[in-house]
Amino acid sequence: MSNIELPVIVLNFKTYIEATGSRALKLARIAENVSLKTGVTIIVCPQFTDIPSITSSLNIPVFAQHIDPIKPGSHTGHILPEAVKAIGVKGTLLNHSERRLLLSDIDFAIRRAMEVDLLTLVCANNVSVASAIALLAPWAIAIEPPELIGTGRAVSKVKPEVVSGAVKAIKNINSSVHVLCGAGIASAEDVEAALKLGAEGVLLASAFVKSKDPEKTLLSMAEAVANVS
Amino acid sequence: MSNIELPVIVLNFKTYIEATGSRALKLARIAENVSLKTGVTIIVCPQFTDIPSITSSLNIPVFAQHIDPIKPGSHTGHILPEAVKAIGVKGTLLNHSERRLLLSDIDFAIRRAMEVDLLTLVCANNVSVASAIALLAPWAIAIEPPELIGTGRAVSKVKPEVVSGAVKAIKNINSSVHVLCGAGIASAEDVEAALKLGAEGVLLASAFVKSKDPEKTLLSMAEAVANVS
Amino acid sequence: MSNIELPVIVLNFKTYIEATGSRALKLARIAENVSLKTGVTIIVCPQFTDIPSITSSLNIPVFAQHIDPIKPGSHTGHILPEAVKAIGVKGTLLNHSERRLLLSDIDFAIRRAMEVDLLTLVCANNVSVASAIALLAPWAIAIEPPELIGTGRAVSKVKPEVVSGAVKAIKNINSSVHVLCGAGIASAEDVEAALKLGAEGVLLASAFVKSKDPEKTLLSMAEAVANVS
Amino acid sequence: MSNIELPVIVLNFKTYIEATGSRALKLARIAENVSLKTGVTIIVCPQFTDIPSITSSLNIPVFAQHIDPIKPGSHTGHILPEAVKAIGVKGTLLNHSERRLLLSDIDFAIRRAMEVDLLTLVCANNVSVASAIALLAPWAIAIEPPELIGTGRAVSKVKPEVVSGAVKAIKNINSSVHVLCGAGIASAEDVEAALKLGAEGVLLASAFVKSKDPEKTLLSMAEAVANVS
Repeated sequence: MSNIELPVIVLNFKTYIEATGSRALKLARIAENVSLKTGVTIIVCPQFTDIPSITSSLNIPVFAQHIDPIKPGSHTGHILPEAVKAIGVKGTLLNHSERRLLLSDIDFAIRRAMEVDLLTLVCANNVSVASAIALLAPWAIAIEPPELIGTGRAVSKVKPEVVSGAVKAIKNINSSVHVLCGAGIASAEDVEAALKLGAEGVLLASAFVKSKDPEKTLLSMAEAVANVS
Repeated sequence: MSNIELPVIVLNFKTYIEATGSRALKLARIAENVSLKTGVTIIVCPQFTDIPSITSSLNIPVFAQHIDPIKPGSHTGHILPEAVKAIGVKGTLLNHSERRLLLSDIDFAIRRAMEVDLLTLVCANNVSVASAIALLAPWAIAIEPPELIGTGRAVSKVKPEVVSGAVKAIKNINSSVHVLCGAGIASAEDVEAALKLGAEGVLLASAFVKSKDPEKTLLSMAEAVANVS
Repeated sequence: MSNIELPVIVLNFKTYIEATGSRALKLARIAENVSLKTGVTIIVCPQFTDIPSITSSLNIPVFAQHIDPIKPGSHTGHILPEAVKAIGVKGTLLNHSERRLLLSDIDFAIRRAMEVDLLTLVCANNVSVASAIALLAPWAIAIEPPELIGTGRAVSKVKPEVVSGAVKAIKNINSSVHVLCGAGIASAEDVEAALKLGAEGVLLASAFVKSKDPEKTLLSMAEAVANVS
Repeated sequence: MSNIELPVIVLNFKTYIEATGSRALKLARIAENVSLKTGVTIIVCPQFTDIPSITSSLNIPVFAQHIDPIKPGSHTGHILPEAVKAIGVKGTLLNHSERRLLLSDIDFAIRRAMEVDLLTLVCANNVSVASAIALLAPWAIAIEPPELIGTGRAVSKVKPEVVSGAVKAIKNINSSVHVLCGAGIASAEDVEAALKLGAEGVLLASAFVKSKDPEKTLLSMAEAVANVS
């Protein structure tokens, strides 16, 4: 199984136009630079179509934004775990609030990911859902209250009890499952608050992708991680 | 708008393991060779993750298997039309029986594809659905009775009236919409039968991808096209 | 086939608490009274669970809010057309913006409804989608721009060209398909404007269900219908 | 909260034509008779539209086949928990293999059911999914390997380890969650085997609904329950 050193900053490129095509490669290069400078692990999650250009030219862990809970076969237009693995991806997001899955499909997708040696970072909207996912033994869970996503109001500051509650609940069920948090993470302070609450990393999107100076934004966050850990 | 010369053979790679990763490139190269030899247009539809390696090294029209009916933004795990366009794709399948869409989403996806200059090949399960789609003015419609897909029993032989009925109905509504047929197409004879019924091309998957000799299979089909047209 | 005299006012009860359980029966009784007073046809669309109490005690046409595109069989938790028919329903909404369907399912649901003698009132978000649906020959189409639903800004006033455009496009394709409009209809004036644009009825929900005086609101609308027609 | 005495036989009427309309009432009456004769709790799960006739005339616990994870509001064509409660229902199935839900929706639906005092019987396709659901604290979980549903090959005989494994895993997580099993249950022996494996009830459909003699079939099963417990 791939090895990712914690804590980690996970950058979700979503389908932002600022992170599409050649701009995805440019953002991933910034992430690689910041990771090299600070020694902090940074994972990028580009769109499927932009992954090959990144994995073939950079040295940074790449996750897919989603895989489908399928085996090879007749599934036109779906995302086959083996296909994602074949282009150098280390893991995948699953069950993001913009791409929720059936419970039985989360279970199956985690197993399929393990079969092809992909790490799984599964999103959960609250502590009880996070606990249920912990029982399915993914690599990590990101707790993300959907009402805060994209708001710039960080979960680690606005709802600290959700982060600490998720850490406690998840570790109690399966101590080897890593716990990240996301939603509204926009500054070094938000990152620092998250780690102090027990999170082993953060998941963010617009604050990096849409930043006027993505490198500066990310650098300050990575330095916060380096200082805390 | 991209220009594709009709008639055409469209090869859907689905998520077959035989068409994943480096094998996708190999199959696409075979298609390119056959097209060069016969002068017949051949379109390949690989998985999203395999498209860049094909468009960057071969000279053959590539279609995506699907795009999502979205604009750039917060759509984690979805397929943005702009992202597909950025990697050199000419068009996309839509509404395949394995990836059916809401009617309002077919309408929106066709418009989004036009905005980014992608051709749309929309699948329809029967003549009335094909007629409804014709009103939305896609580039082409593929009539594919789902019960025949993957059976090796060709729609052009088993249900010729569906093909000729679709051609008549679609052209009556919008004569500039091209009509293809698919489902069970497995031999040069099936292709020939389709063209004689008025289809301007065929859509096939397993008969090519899973053939013991994909080049031979495709060559015989392309020669049938060259002879009829 | 059931006979419904046009023009018509269609009242969608949605899952409003004000239209749940005994309150659904009360609202339906108001509709019956107004219809008797004015001679205008009024259709009510209660929740499935509230239909039997209405059809067994009132004399007013009742539509379901949805049917599933299924035949009898193993479909736990779905809405069987035969089951809806069995409790005295005359027809059904289909493809409401809050319950969109796959194109192939709209096609199949319309056919299933005809098989069990249910009328279909299919919602469409714009003129091109309405045209596509017209080809599937439902009983009626309701044009409803989703951005106006629930706003109190009536489609017949804010976007009159959508209503007249839908009337023209639908009648051109199939003159026997009736055309209604909805979204934002909140007053007698909105209704009058709709009919003057060629609509044969209106579809509304909150303006009636959430009215402080539902009888008064509905009466004024029905009188507007009676005056215009 | 409603009180249901265990063990229990749960009869899912699905959308079988043999359990639609007046036939639903007839089957529910049979279930009531068998329950009275044997003292065994029997729950019936009719279609939504058939529930009022049953709850108004019989004295037998009725469950819905599904509720939607919604609050009152604009949800045309959906199943509101309050609406189901209003017609005398005691609980609901959730996440049946024919009506799977998003994990976040299972979580929310269970909470909504509790708010309106409905019991939840949540289906799970395997032990790990059952465990995840147990953390959400429903009233009961039914373990149902989908590949056995409708086969007449009983889970309690063909895959006894799935039943005993689910009992152990669920009780370990939350001992107050009841465990039922289903899929292929067709005879008194199957029921007996299920109870001996620790299940507190069974969930079945076709073996009762499509039986040539539903009363005889159900009576033998209920007697098996009475003997074991």
